[in-house]
Amino acid sequence: MFRTAELGRKVSKEEFDRQAEPLRIELLELQQKLRAADVPVILVFAGVDGAGKSESMNLLNEWLDPRWIVTCAYGPPSDEERERPEFWRFWRDLPPKGRIGQFLSAWYSRPFRDFATGAIDEAAFDEELKRIQAFETTLADDGALILKFWMHLGKEAQKKRLKSLEKDPQQSWRVTAQDWKNWEMYDAFIRAAEHLIARTSVAAARWTIVEGQDHRYRALTVLCSVRDALLHHLERRRRQRQVQAEAAAWPGTPSGTGDAVLPDLVAGLPTVLDTLDMTRTLPKEDYRAALSKQQGRVAVLQRQAREQGISTVLVFEGWDAAGKGGAIRRLTRALDARQLQVIPVAAPTDEEQAQHYLWRFWRQLGRAGRVTVFDRSWYGRVLVERVEGYASQDEWARAFAEIRDFEEQIVQHGMVLCKFWLHITKDEQFARFKDREETPYKRWKLTEEDWRNRDKWDAYEQAINEMVERTSTHSAPWTLVEANDKRHARVKVIRTVAEAMERVMTKS
Amino acid sequence: MFRTAELGRKVSKEEFDRQAEPLRIELLELQQKLRAADVPVILVFAGVDGAGKSESMNLLNEWLDPRWIVTCAYGPPSDEERERPEFWRFWRDLPPKGRIGQFLSAWYSRPFRDFATGAIDEAAFDEELKRIQAFETTLADDGALILKFWMHLGKEAQKKRLKSLEKDPQQSWRVTAQDWKNWEMYDAFIRAAEHLIARTSVAAARWTIVEGQDHRYRALTVLCSVRDALLHHLERRRRQRQVQAEAAAWPGTPSGTGDAVLPDLVAGLPTVLDTLDMTRTLPKEDYRAALSKQQGRVAVLQRQAREQGISTVLVFEGWDAAGKGGAIRRLTRALDARQLQVIPVAAPTDEEQAQHYLWRFWRQLGRAGRVTVFDRSWYGRVLVERVEGYASQDEWARAFAEIRDFEEQIVQHGMVLCKFWLHITKDEQFARFKDREETPYKRWKLTEEDWRNRDKWDAYEQAINEMVERTSTHSAPWTLVEANDKRHARVKVIRTVAEAMERVMTKS
Repeated sequence: MFRTAELGRKVSKEEFDRQAEPLRIELLELQQKLRAADVPVILVFAGVDGAGKSESMNLLNEWLDPRWIVTCAYGPPSDEERERPEFWRFWRDLPPKGRIGQFLSAWYSRPFRDFATGAIDEAAFDEELKRIQAFETTLADDGALILKFWMHLGKEAQKKRLKSLEKDPQQSWRVTAQDWKNWEMYDAFIRAAEHLIARTSVAAARWTIVEGQDHRYRALTVLCSVRDALLHHLERRRRQRQVQAEAAAWPGTPSGTGDAVLPDLVAGLPTVLDTLDMTRTLPKEDYRAALSKQQGRVAVLQRQAREQGISTVLVFEGWDAAGKGGAIRRLTRALDARQLQVIPVAAPTDEEQAQHYLWRFWRQLGRAGRVTVFDRSWYGRVLVERVEGYASQDEWARAFAEIRDFEEQIVQHGMVLCKFWLHITKDEQFARFKDREETPYKRWKLTEEDWRNRDKWDAYEQAINEMVERTSTHSAPWTLVEANDKRHARVKVIRTVAEAMERVMTKS
Repeated sequence: MFRTAELGRKVSKEEFDRQAEPLRIELLELQQKLRAADVPVILVFAGVDGAGKSESMNLLNEWLDPRWIVTCAYGPPSDEERERPEFWRFWRDLPPKGRIGQFLSAWYSRPFRDFATGAIDEAAFDEELKRIQAFETTLADDGALILKFWMHLGKEAQKKRLKSLEKDPQQSWRVTAQDWKNWEMYDAFIRAAEHLIARTSVAAARWTIVEGQDHRYRALTVLCSVRDALLHHLERRRRQRQVQAEAAAWPGTPSGTGDAVLPDLVAGLPTVLDTLDMTRTLPKEDYRAALSKQQGRVAVLQRQAREQGISTVLVFEGWDAAGKGGAIRRLTRALDARQLQVIPVAAPTDEEQAQHYLWRFWRQLGRAGRVTVFDRSWYGRVLVERVEGYASQDEWARAFAEIRDFEEQIVQHGMVLCKFWLHITKDEQFARFKDREETPYKRWKLTEEDWRNRDKWDAYEQAINEMVERTSTHSAPWTLVEANDKRHARVKVIRTVAEAMERVMTKS
């Protein structure tokens, strides 16, 4: 795979100087255009030590306007990073739209090293690469331009390079004992690299293998690749927008990756919500005792979870007036406010708007031992954004896979995750809206929008049905809560949380 | 000081229940009003162990809508926090406008403990309290409502309370060996508390001492205090806005805390900028060598700083077209992009807009060993915001003291701080604007706004003069750079950075 990157290609100083000035102006102009575009650029530099990874990053900072570039290199994770899923640190560093983020090895670093040194086998490596692929696809689907450079040196060339760096007093610090140890393992590293590149070179995020021996050749290759890709991407993005605008008039079949097709609901036939027994109630005389029993249980569990560093993520979705707020309050009343965060999800801020829609939820994941309650959540993408047309069909359809992947990472990290859909019947909702209208201190809860949403009941029902179907996984199932009776709903919610916490804590 | 908090006041269950319902509705309504107002609320709970600090926080979470409350308790700082000045963690947790942040001990915790246990003497304690006072005043001046509750128990009452907690199997975990050790030191703690309360009870952030023995009395006292303060503050804020709108028509003397009055500039008489020798040049033949010497020097220093964990903060201000971008690029070219962040300061995002204006700069302070370059900075408050009237006279006038305090914390934390004003003459600016107009790939750099700013040259000159005068402190001096000659300016900037880094590293 690397034979074409060991040809000893060189660029003379004259040739370099001839190309440099116009190329630089082109790049600066493209960077200006990018700033006005609605896409971020993600550059990854990985490869053989001494082949010019960080030199290339410095070069981009030097040639382009560094104010619009974010450069990220990673050491061992900080404690705040270790307390979240591994990709949290990469999500938080992602460049917003209009900017360039350049990443040194980043998400490739640990899996690559683990496989090359034999710490994990090929099957495990492939699993990790699949996660990476999903991550990059998620970003590319959202419009990101992703360019990955594998900087290569032949075995002998690397040896020479390390030796010559060692001799230069200005550069010798760059060469560490670890570099020589890596060099001994050159062949194993190359085999791992071939495997990695083959599995993660996908249309949306292709690797470019760069011969790293000659610094002028290397510089021109990287810079010209960036220029060409930027030119192409901005143009393609412009056309895409056009096509999308036209296609919006002609909706087709959603294309969520790997998802089976769900037939449209036939009006009148039952959905998953109709499987609920909406007559369930909890008599008032049993409620107090049941509630305080579950609250006590969850209070003890929270303390244990805190001690063990186990975080809990709770998602509340449901019809307007289904009692989300009340259920959340009954639950949080039992919890220690110091370890708790309730996140009300409303319109994204402009910093959030400049990122992938999942970014705002990644950033909210709590530290070890904390409880994070989402009052509405990432499911807005496939509910309100779908029904109201804020997200295109492509966007919400691919969100199912993106959400499954996100939640899998939460669960794999050892966090507790519960997702509640609070269901009420249409009649019950009407009664509650009326009550809110008539009770002075509840009036602020009811808005015009609630009435408008109610008119779209059927469209929401279809969206909910599909959401539950596509995102109820073994590791992150939905809990559907019969909420016509508030007492029943509240106790069921808290009991479900307690059970989920118990399950995770018994495991660990 | 605490005698009135040892009277054994009690509220009966009947009395509590009678007051609870209407109080709760009032609080919820006020919280709704607060959400629409442009001020945050900061509640601090501190005091004797067992007197109900965290119970009060839980109570607020329970009675109010927890979605608009942020609750913060602090353990030992994380490594990301340790790498910044101590107040960084508090700044990052501040509630945005419209929300309530409740803080457990927070910024009082460490200084209080240090003094009570004798780790620091009274003078050092007073220094810490002064910093706290400045912090709270800064927030209050910006409109924050700050309420601080000191939860008190007499020595015997505390002993009883700890014993009764120990006996309750549900609560016994709350009592630790440390609590009993603290109890032994009760008298020392009380003396420290008296000192702390006396020094930090200022008009804008007063302490309320709450007798903590009876939980119903305690709850009503805290909740009614919050209600009354909210009512009062929202009303006062409304009037303040009115008065401000009227006063804007009649500007008076700025009231920057503790600042001497500066006379208005008399047109034609010299300012601090006129002390610069604007004929300074660096001949082209000397430039290359001088530049690369300084670049090499700074490159080595950056590596050393990285190893020692010393961060560098560089601030670039200057006239439009003074060459900030060029100087920054010559500097960053010498630096390792992986340890570098260039922050272009433009309009704040809406998350930043919802906070004190310094918040956005606090959040950008880099981790240990990194270099952060601000292309424009917090000085916008006393430059463009002053001249254009975006900040009121009160706002920009008090910013001088706020900025001095911010920078002092940066320097005290052991970071390197340099501030550059790049100065060009009015004629030179004109020539550069013309050049930008005429060079195709520079044209994007010149905007209508640049011409408009130029028309306000004199107003800016006055603002610059005052800024340099008021914020050139011993620990954070301005470097004025004669920038009519770009070569001279660039070399001077990099040399100044190198010298500052050397100074800090020799010290440590």
